[in-house]
Amino acid sequence: MTLVGHFINGEIIVDGNNTQDVFNPANGQVSKQVALADKAMVEKAIAAAQAAFPAWRNTPPMKRAHIMFRFRELLEKNADKIVAMITEEHGKVISDARGELQRGIEVVENACGAPELLKGEHNKNAGPAIDTWSEFQPLGVVAGITPFNFPAMVPLWMYPMSLICGNTFVLKPSERDPSAPLFIAQLLHEAGLPKGVFNVVNGGKEAVDTLLTDSRIEAVSFVGSTPIAEYVYQTASHHGKRCQALGGAKNHAIVMPDADLDDAADALMGAAYGSAGERCMAISVVVAVGDDAADALVEKLGSRIKDLKVGPGTDNSSDMGPLITQQHQQRVAGYIDAGVSEGADLVCDGRNLRVANCEAGYFVGATLFDRVTAEMSIYRDEIFGPVLCVVRADSLQDAIALIDAHEYGNGTCIFTRDGESARYFSDNIKVGMVGVNVPLPVPVACHTFGGWKRSLFGDLGVYGPDAIRFNTRRKTITQRWPSSGLRAGANFAFPSTK
Amino acid sequence: MTLVGHFINGEIIVDGNNTQDVFNPANGQVSKQVALADKAMVEKAIAAAQAAFPAWRNTPPMKRAHIMFRFRELLEKNADKIVAMITEEHGKVISDARGELQRGIEVVENACGAPELLKGEHNKNAGPAIDTWSEFQPLGVVAGITPFNFPAMVPLWMYPMSLICGNTFVLKPSERDPSAPLFIAQLLHEAGLPKGVFNVVNGGKEAVDTLLTDSRIEAVSFVGSTPIAEYVYQTASHHGKRCQALGGAKNHAIVMPDADLDDAADALMGAAYGSAGERCMAISVVVAVGDDAADALVEKLGSRIKDLKVGPGTDNSSDMGPLITQQHQQRVAGYIDAGVSEGADLVCDGRNLRVANCEAGYFVGATLFDRVTAEMSIYRDEIFGPVLCVVRADSLQDAIALIDAHEYGNGTCIFTRDGESARYFSDNIKVGMVGVNVPLPVPVACHTFGGWKRSLFGDLGVYGPDAIRFNTRRKTITQRWPSSGLRAGANFAFPSTK
Amino acid sequence: MTLVGHFINGEIIVDGNNTQDVFNPANGQVSKQVALADKAMVEKAIAAAQAAFPAWRNTPPMKRAHIMFRFRELLEKNADKIVAMITEEHGKVISDARGELQRGIEVVENACGAPELLKGEHNKNAGPAIDTWSEFQPLGVVAGITPFNFPAMVPLWMYPMSLICGNTFVLKPSERDPSAPLFIAQLLHEAGLPKGVFNVVNGGKEAVDTLLTDSRIEAVSFVGSTPIAEYVYQTASHHGKRCQALGGAKNHAIVMPDADLDDAADALMGAAYGSAGERCMAISVVVAVGDDAADALVEKLGSRIKDLKVGPGTDNSSDMGPLITQQHQQRVAGYIDAGVSEGADLVCDGRNLRVANCEAGYFVGATLFDRVTAEMSIYRDEIFGPVLCVVRADSLQDAIALIDAHEYGNGTCIFTRDGESARYFSDNIKVGMVGVNVPLPVPVACHTFGGWKRSLFGDLGVYGPDAIRFNTRRKTITQRWPSSGLRAGANFAFPSTK
Amino acid sequence: MTLVGHFINGEIIVDGNNTQDVFNPANGQVSKQVALADKAMVEKAIAAAQAAFPAWRNTPPMKRAHIMFRFRELLEKNADKIVAMITEEHGKVISDARGELQRGIEVVENACGAPELLKGEHNKNAGPAIDTWSEFQPLGVVAGITPFNFPAMVPLWMYPMSLICGNTFVLKPSERDPSAPLFIAQLLHEAGLPKGVFNVVNGGKEAVDTLLTDSRIEAVSFVGSTPIAEYVYQTASHHGKRCQALGGAKNHAIVMPDADLDDAADALMGAAYGSAGERCMAISVVVAVGDDAADALVEKLGSRIKDLKVGPGTDNSSDMGPLITQQHQQRVAGYIDAGVSEGADLVCDGRNLRVANCEAGYFVGATLFDRVTAEMSIYRDEIFGPVLCVVRADSLQDAIALIDAHEYGNGTCIFTRDGESARYFSDNIKVGMVGVNVPLPVPVACHTFGGWKRSLFGDLGVYGPDAIRFNTRRKTITQRWPSSGLRAGANFAFPSTK
Repeated sequence: MTLVGHFINGEIIVDGNNTQDVFNPANGQVSKQVALADKAMVEKAIAAAQAAFPAWRNTPPMKRAHIMFRFRELLEKNADKIVAMITEEHGKVISDARGELQRGIEVVENACGAPELLKGEHNKNAGPAIDTWSEFQPLGVVAGITPFNFPAMVPLWMYPMSLICGNTFVLKPSERDPSAPLFIAQLLHEAGLPKGVFNVVNGGKEAVDTLLTDSRIEAVSFVGSTPIAEYVYQTASHHGKRCQALGGAKNHAIVMPDADLDDAADALMGAAYGSAGERCMAISVVVAVGDDAADALVEKLGSRIKDLKVGPGTDNSSDMGPLITQQHQQRVAGYIDAGVSEGADLVCDGRNLRVANCEAGYFVGATLFDRVTAEMSIYRDEIFGPVLCVVRADSLQDAIALIDAHEYGNGTCIFTRDGESARYFSDNIKVGMVGVNVPLPVPVACHTFGGWKRSLFGDLGVYGPDAIRFNTRRKTITQRWPSSGLRAGANFAFPSTK
Repeated sequence: MTLVGHFINGEIIVDGNNTQDVFNPANGQVSKQVALADKAMVEKAIAAAQAAFPAWRNTPPMKRAHIMFRFRELLEKNADKIVAMITEEHGKVISDARGELQRGIEVVENACGAPELLKGEHNKNAGPAIDTWSEFQPLGVVAGITPFNFPAMVPLWMYPMSLICGNTFVLKPSERDPSAPLFIAQLLHEAGLPKGVFNVVNGGKEAVDTLLTDSRIEAVSFVGSTPIAEYVYQTASHHGKRCQALGGAKNHAIVMPDADLDDAADALMGAAYGSAGERCMAISVVVAVGDDAADALVEKLGSRIKDLKVGPGTDNSSDMGPLITQQHQQRVAGYIDAGVSEGADLVCDGRNLRVANCEAGYFVGATLFDRVTAEMSIYRDEIFGPVLCVVRADSLQDAIALIDAHEYGNGTCIFTRDGESARYFSDNIKVGMVGVNVPLPVPVACHTFGGWKRSLFGDLGVYGPDAIRFNTRRKTITQRWPSSGLRAGANFAFPSTK
Repeated sequence: MTLVGHFINGEIIVDGNNTQDVFNPANGQVSKQVALADKAMVEKAIAAAQAAFPAWRNTPPMKRAHIMFRFRELLEKNADKIVAMITEEHGKVISDARGELQRGIEVVENACGAPELLKGEHNKNAGPAIDTWSEFQPLGVVAGITPFNFPAMVPLWMYPMSLICGNTFVLKPSERDPSAPLFIAQLLHEAGLPKGVFNVVNGGKEAVDTLLTDSRIEAVSFVGSTPIAEYVYQTASHHGKRCQALGGAKNHAIVMPDADLDDAADALMGAAYGSAGERCMAISVVVAVGDDAADALVEKLGSRIKDLKVGPGTDNSSDMGPLITQQHQQRVAGYIDAGVSEGADLVCDGRNLRVANCEAGYFVGATLFDRVTAEMSIYRDEIFGPVLCVVRADSLQDAIALIDAHEYGNGTCIFTRDGESARYFSDNIKVGMVGVNVPLPVPVACHTFGGWKRSLFGDLGVYGPDAIRFNTRRKTITQRWPSSGLRAGANFAFPSTK
Repeated sequence: MTLVGHFINGEIIVDGNNTQDVFNPANGQVSKQVALADKAMVEKAIAAAQAAFPAWRNTPPMKRAHIMFRFRELLEKNADKIVAMITEEHGKVISDARGELQRGIEVVENACGAPELLKGEHNKNAGPAIDTWSEFQPLGVVAGITPFNFPAMVPLWMYPMSLICGNTFVLKPSERDPSAPLFIAQLLHEAGLPKGVFNVVNGGKEAVDTLLTDSRIEAVSFVGSTPIAEYVYQTASHHGKRCQALGGAKNHAIVMPDADLDDAADALMGAAYGSAGERCMAISVVVAVGDDAADALVEKLGSRIKDLKVGPGTDNSSDMGPLITQQHQQRVAGYIDAGVSEGADLVCDGRNLRVANCEAGYFVGATLFDRVTAEMSIYRDEIFGPVLCVVRADSLQDAIALIDAHEYGNGTCIFTRDGESARYFSDNIKVGMVGVNVPLPVPVACHTFGGWKRSLFGDLGVYGPDAIRFNTRRKTITQRWPSSGLRAGANFAFPSTK
């Protein structure tokens, strides 16, 4: 059986001391094993990154960008292979995995603009004959810790931007679906990245804690659940590191009475059930303004759910695949039980779904609750499964108040035709990423991803303009030249002995 | 005797329960008393700031800027009065206090550009008929905690930028010299700032801890010593706040053998002894490259020190005033004792200086040590007094290695005529603010102030471009309009009943 | 009788050889005379500007900005005086003159951000150890030629931005209302601007042609009618100068059937009849989509016109003042005659208006035509008077096609609540400045003013970001230092003889 | 014999009515023929570009960028083929052709950042509840007219940036070496560019005049000699088009007495004789400050010239190839004759060079004149051949005065170790592109190329930030939503009939 290893200093290292099973969630079978790094192994990766730093720091941004251009080509050329790895280990359908990869590639494309992105600001004559300019200098070794739900995209949100800034990097991806990030690391190396500049270690808490506490790590980017994000942020900050830790979400969509309800229902199907809801930007709550809108919308969603095909991700006719693990499948089913007992209307029930030939897969069907209230656990908690809750509100203001009272503030959206409603909502809502008739408002690569409230610990988001600041220290230089030098010398011959 | 109070919700509040003496350091006399806020008083200020937030948040940036324009006029009109307050309570000479105020005003001038500084980035057609843009939205209530050494400038580094972003603010200035910040707060109010938008509380640890832990405070800017900075950073971060905490410094100047030594010596006198060395950007170490340069420089400095006039700041002929407190005077003298016993050459001795008519003032004269080494306490510690240490190095590389081995990385400079030396130094040195023939490379207001290593905890500096990011959350909006709306409607008459 | 002179090299120069009457358009009386500069006088101004250039070029942007801060204060302090001058010579009502001045002051406020606006772009390590940066260097002497309709604002659109870039300037304002620009020039001088940096000459074609052809003038900014703009552009370009020449306009407002018609009618009253329509951004055509909207709108406008008070600008109860000259009054009346004979419905007729006590004033009342078509002269030509034409269209697409077929493309707006209509319109319309429910979309000072098609000759607009590029030449510096210099020298003692 | 045609609407069109010989300058033989487009053929290309505009304008910038990514890959894959075409028709050596292509590719790389480069500026709350933003909208059909000396690079300076802005394009490359631009056009099409978006026509004056006068062409970018540049600028401007016309050069290098003379001599060899001096950035004048520097430098250059290998570009051992035509060869030789008769010291004489097996090639050897003065024709005129003139100056100020008195102001450089000299020079010199120890300071792709004085007609340079402004019109949108809309409605049910 294949043992997935680490990628350190330009080489795959397989260490079988401590391993863990990797499952195919569509059939529940163990497909591979993954090595879990101990402290020493992580330190080896850090040491490699540290050794590679001085030369990489001095490599001009344009040369760094040239590697990104080649990396992009290799990602496109190997897209099918990467996508297959994702589907096999994560379970999501092929088209969804391809979409994930594409969003990751777009960050690489943005990173290709390194010379543009790293421009400092220059003030001629900041004072009399004094010039001042700022430089974006790299930090050193940066670490990234990423979740299972986007094994390709979320790592790509982090390291391309960090690398073009001149940092070296240690990535600890999720041990649930380790193949894609490891393979992509090899492509980056093939693209010309020097040894040690980018390293991957698989591992669990020991690996994470090593990254959070080792003094050679200058900064940590994390994406995961909120409790872990908070732990990561507090630990890394306490150890003097920069940290950005992105946590959980409960993303609401508001449907206004003037919305095109068919358009909204179509959009919500993908936003709620795509990737089986295992997305930090998934819509898990719909706030319908007015009972007319709510009634119509629930009906439209219900009929669409009937046509939703759940099956293995490798089947091109599947719309939705399994969840990541059996435990998670049971947890999601437990939430559905709780919703029922808490009094919500269960319109569509995804429990006890049987997928032919995949009976041992971790499937839960698309689930729809109506008349959910703010006190219910299915409303309060991030379920991370294909469970959509409809809450009814009397006005846009009520809907906004509901959203702002939730602990998370990652993404949200509104469906309306009305300019004023859209502007009022996007202005006032306490959420970092806002869609207007766009259900999954993940910012494009030249903007920055980041939520508000307990969805993000730290003051800078991932990728885009914030990433340049997170991954660099500014250095400001103030320069004046003494006027009594060479030029003013009456006798220009003075250095003739040289 | 005057009791200096707080400024909360547009009014001076004087609370005599807990007070502390304010001294005139030039004569050692108590000149005023200052009220120290307890937790309840700080909470009152926070509550005022929170109540003022919604309206201020919705005030257009141009209107916020108009207040800054008027604030600037009032600062200029009241400059003599402010400067006199600074000199009386801090001790620095009038011209130096005026310089401090001017640098603070320049931040206000930059803040006048609010509409320019708060521009978001707009992507037309980020996708097909999809637009995306980012907004810089205010955080809410921000706190600033500032040191005694620049009672006007350091607060002005913080709150003008925070206010134009739409935040409301609670400032806790130093209780050693509280009059200037309090008076300036009243000017800001006179300039048209609504009540509660800007508040000042005087206080000690109880006040600080309240600001660091109250859940209504969204962010904390701090300037002070490194141990406190670290405490502030860890505490505020742990409580889920943004924090930037600027700490101590030990700023080195390198003098290369080709430097104009008279020019360098002139520059170093001001940089080392200005404000009696009580500046986080003061030069406290000179690294002379080559013994020839060192010998000549020490001689030039020694002769200039002889001409340095030490006296009360109110005397226009004084070049340097007293230290802030008697304890600090004794602490600095203790370091000079230590330098001698550690084996450094004491070229000029500032101990036991008697200033006529100011015998009780906290004066220490300009002190110069030669042949200082990296192990000595006078080298390792931030003395924050008029003590300059000369270290001798064999090469620029050695000088750089010395600087990089120090725990602080605030400012540094080099004196040379040589383009390559300057570029190599400014590129490689691990210090955030670098001067080339500029001894105090404090960035101008349109750049950002911030050191490296243990001189700054946090990832964003104060004022300038970093301040905009520190004082805002980015919100990214992705917008698409359904095409089946009004325009495409065959029957445009549908809303005719309206 | 007062003779209005020139302002050259810091002094008022009155030259009575060639003069022209200045009228008070509210009563038709000659109020002053204005000197008209001959070629020699213009050359004197150019020479003064050229002589002042080297020192001003080397003045740091922050110092230039400080003059702008003081200039702003003086403009605010003298606002009543300036406004009175405008009203006396132009005729517009006091509140409108104050609005004009305010928009001009906002450009000065933006210019106060000179250090921010003049930041160049710096690329560290553009190549191996090679740095590159760009500087915005001034051109030299720049000329501005401005129209009668905004004697304060339009000049202020030009020279504050040009001056902070380091240029010196010669302004030739309109000889119809010369007092305000001349007085403002003196305020700028009082604010600290060195002699010769800013000069004003009054004059006619001889003065203009001198500015367009003198080899010492590097760039020309012009605002006026399209035929003159084209002449200015061709002449200045032929003589090797940069030129931006802003011409005429015929600004359309689209009113969609879903618009708030009362809101739209209120907005249109000011946009069409404010300043008696003598604005390049005035709305002179309303395109109503659908007859229902058209009928209702015409009725609402008609009833509002009945309440419109026409009278001398000095009367605070006046909503609208006279036109600039008797000839222009007759020309506008002639267009109304033509509209009637071409078949448009004359809903409100402004001809033959009598204003009590101002019988000799150049008044034309608010005029409204309905059912105007694209062939009529009142539609095709810029009337520059209080004449509003309603055109009826069947759809937004038709309305857009109509606007795009017109030769001008300065400003336009749409009234709607519908997000998609607004976005489709603003995306596709071939007009440079677009309002959504904003009738006069003059960009704020941190954006750039500029129309499309025959409303602007040249590739850069006035004020805002374009102004920085128009008023500077970029210089790009690529720098490498030889590595065999001082630092690498084994013997650092080599310059010991120095 | 091959007949090189046009590329219109995605197809090669060969039209043999009017053709011209294409020579191999290394052996003087006709290698191909090129079709010369008449007016009708150019109009066909313009029509294709116009037809392709609406769809391309609406293609999101990211999609345009994706085509640029693929274009870059194809350019790299086909580099050898392109380089061979350049060498065969232009004559430059292979390594030089490869360098040219690389600089062109770097502009494509910058263009890959379209989403970043086209970001507009967004002001939330520019006024109360009013938002403003700017868009960079394309112009329509843009034309480029390019010279023989960089058949790949100069066209690539223009159209990638123009295309990503949303324009369509007609390129008229030089008819001397037409193969490379035509082949590259096919690669761009292969990369996915839709038909008609990019078109190439070969031709002479008739083709040029058609592009300059056709009303469908919105803007013209030109690179060539100054007399033609002036004609192009005046003609295009007169016809209401934007125009940037880059002309000739006479680039000076200053060598200061403290310079590393070996380093300078090495750099000057490439800068003066690379591409046989047929570069608008070639150094053709060295200004040596001080006779010591001059004497030493002339000696060092002379000895290096002896080792310079002149031969066919296809021979890898050649350092320098032939000139472009026999007429040009004779013209350059004539200048050498003139230099001798005008009294300059001819140190190395490139006339009458015989290259074995290439006797009919258009070779002129590396030529060096010393003691050249400002009156000589070899100093005043752009020779565009391998002729380097040494002028001797007494000081940096004298050297600067000499350069500033020349009609051209394209590029220049200084060799020195002295920071102050470099800063004084780069600040004051009236030249657009400045090198410090960099002989050919062609700005990198994220900066803009453009000279001053008679080296550039127009106010914006090619590629980099200026290119975005040149290739777009700004549109500024000011938006307010009426507050009485959907949200405020008490009865949210109003659109229930929908």
